[in-house]
Amino acid sequence: MNNFTFYSPTFFAFGKDTEHDAGCYVKRFGGTRVLIHYGGGSVIRSGLLDRVKASLDREGIPYVLLGGVKPNPRSGLVYEGIELCKKEGVDFILAVGGGSTIDSAKAIAAGVVYEGDFWDFYCGKRIEKALPIGTILTIAAAGSEGSPDTVITNENGMFKRGATGDAVRPKFSILNPALTQTLSPYQTACGITDIIAHLYERYLTNTPEVEVTDRLIEALLLTMVHEGPRVIADPNNYEARANIMWAGMMAHNNSCGVGRSQDWTSHDVEHELSALYDCAHGAGLAVTLPAMFTYVMEHDVMRFAQVAVRVWGCQMDFAHPEVTAKAGIEALKKFLVSIGMPVSFSQLGAKEEDIPKLVDVLCNGNGRPGYIEGFTKLNEADCTRIYQLMV
Amino acid sequence: MNNFTFYSPTFFAFGKDTEHDAGCYVKRFGGTRVLIHYGGGSVIRSGLLDRVKASLDREGIPYVLLGGVKPNPRSGLVYEGIELCKKEGVDFILAVGGGSTIDSAKAIAAGVVYEGDFWDFYCGKRIEKALPIGTILTIAAAGSEGSPDTVITNENGMFKRGATGDAVRPKFSILNPALTQTLSPYQTACGITDIIAHLYERYLTNTPEVEVTDRLIEALLLTMVHEGPRVIADPNNYEARANIMWAGMMAHNNSCGVGRSQDWTSHDVEHELSALYDCAHGAGLAVTLPAMFTYVMEHDVMRFAQVAVRVWGCQMDFAHPEVTAKAGIEALKKFLVSIGMPVSFSQLGAKEEDIPKLVDVLCNGNGRPGYIEGFTKLNEADCTRIYQLMV
Repeated sequence: MNNFTFYSPTFFAFGKDTEHDAGCYVKRFGGTRVLIHYGGGSVIRSGLLDRVKASLDREGIPYVLLGGVKPNPRSGLVYEGIELCKKEGVDFILAVGGGSTIDSAKAIAAGVVYEGDFWDFYCGKRIEKALPIGTILTIAAAGSEGSPDTVITNENGMFKRGATGDAVRPKFSILNPALTQTLSPYQTACGITDIIAHLYERYLTNTPEVEVTDRLIEALLLTMVHEGPRVIADPNNYEARANIMWAGMMAHNNSCGVGRSQDWTSHDVEHELSALYDCAHGAGLAVTLPAMFTYVMEHDVMRFAQVAVRVWGCQMDFAHPEVTAKAGIEALKKFLVSIGMPVSFSQLGAKEEDIPKLVDVLCNGNGRPGYIEGFTKLNEADCTRIYQLMV
Repeated sequence: MNNFTFYSPTFFAFGKDTEHDAGCYVKRFGGTRVLIHYGGGSVIRSGLLDRVKASLDREGIPYVLLGGVKPNPRSGLVYEGIELCKKEGVDFILAVGGGSTIDSAKAIAAGVVYEGDFWDFYCGKRIEKALPIGTILTIAAAGSEGSPDTVITNENGMFKRGATGDAVRPKFSILNPALTQTLSPYQTACGITDIIAHLYERYLTNTPEVEVTDRLIEALLLTMVHEGPRVIADPNNYEARANIMWAGMMAHNNSCGVGRSQDWTSHDVEHELSALYDCAHGAGLAVTLPAMFTYVMEHDVMRFAQVAVRVWGCQMDFAHPEVTAKAGIEALKKFLVSIGMPVSFSQLGAKEEDIPKLVDVLCNGNGRPGYIEGFTKLNEADCTRIYQLMV
């Protein structure tokens, strides 16, 4: 196991009706003038935004509103949010929505207290300072509610890039599984896929002797395998949604990923798909993961065999572990299909002729050195082959 | 799943040589005058105390020392520590040792800023305020390094009781697995048993639909089953110790116990043993757990069958699940024996004729209502039978 530090100071309020306490938590964590940041009309239609406003009103906390966050959140709205916060003297940002809204809120929070261009953080500069953030989560997926990470797409070049820093870890996150019951099965399945990706990407490690984190990741994968189909079959299954929601947070606050090398190349490969085609991130991952794993499996066959046996219930073929490893990847693919996810380029609306463009931006865009690296090093030829496996 | 809140804001620094950074972390978390609290001579002999002092010296942070914490830490030293802190103007407490030292530090930290008798907190009053605490952990066991809990034995009556409050969660905890390599196999096994108890006590729930936390608890149990024998066979196995150390923290910071009823009656039953015989807490638990589980198994046979299959690798007997459930308890007992733990009264130095006294203090001592309650309600007759099963 590698040396590490771990810090997850977010206060979580989990369960039914917990959004009514948003105002109390803003007060507890020092907010006196709030930006409520949200996405489209669903939080308005569902009445959630009104409940949040009422909660702030009860505490006498003034607020301004900025909606309009889109999936794959854009830099334009971030700049707008930064200006608004400065103008209005906002000292706390409350994100009401999913990972895109939270990521956009994190970017604004970091940008408000930074003299330069907030995009610097998405080019490798660590976020050291930010306005405090609270979240009210409406989809179990990105894990942004408990993470120091944020992903934004720069409209100038359509680069989709990540930034990180403990300063943007939410002070509090409100997780009410009932709020996710209005999601479509497709949106729900996209979230499930994103959570599974966060787990696999921690699982694909080159660090030996990491039994405890292996087991924890497998525990969360097993949860997704059990609860995923239940919630797709019955969108109103509160209990299944609750288990998925906590698993989604645990999958990405890094408590099960510490002390080991991780592999974020699947996310990198996918980001080019959602940046170019504006598809849902989870859908892009569903297409990416089986292709990616098929390509990199040989790097550590026993690791793929282990997850096949422990999570997917495959029988170990001791004479031919690669058969077991492949069976695990097939089982993942079947699972993704069973919850309604696309698993090919055409289902995603992606085009084979775009592969050179995808590969170029992936490996060379935004200052990249001609390759990406995690579990293995992948150059342009490797990435081309991976995209081709999705066709 | 039940509604819950979860808050684990401790900063963890994990790995080799991390104790050298103690001074930096004290400074980061606001300490300017420190009480270094520790136990017996081992931290002196190993040179750890000198390394910690040097680290504080490098940051120019003055300190006073209070050693002498014993296993099953006593109220007398807590009173002494409170007086010392007040006299010396201490504003940060640094615990160097195991769970007993950390628990004693938490009691002092709460007592210094409280007008009344610190024992009030151990009679049910929640700890709302305390001096900040840092820890340098020397044994993987109690999980106190990441928990809001503390257990103290009151010398006036020998009541061993717990207190809790987020205010005594450590600001930082330094976990260097190499520091645990000097422990005897017996001490190591006691720690392993304590961790296993923390997991089982969360596992024994009456809350339905808790797949995610069930799976997480099983993951940590599987880790202990794998790593425990490795570290007993080779005390210098850093990797096994590292996996156990992180599992020990995760087992008790409640990330895998949220949203479900828990069962702390095994700890209650054991506390009377270690209070009366001053045995190691882990050893007392090794004697307690199999007896306890045998007695309460009928309350939920399928829960015990589940852990038997998922953790202990037992085959499910679908016609007779109680057979599987019992096999799991037997497997646990065999495991405890294999790592050198006692599993009977005589091995512990306990006496059958003391059972009435044990039961009386357990069920009626320190204001208890004549019974204890968790997974099931256990009255004096039940507790008598449980102690008899240990003979």
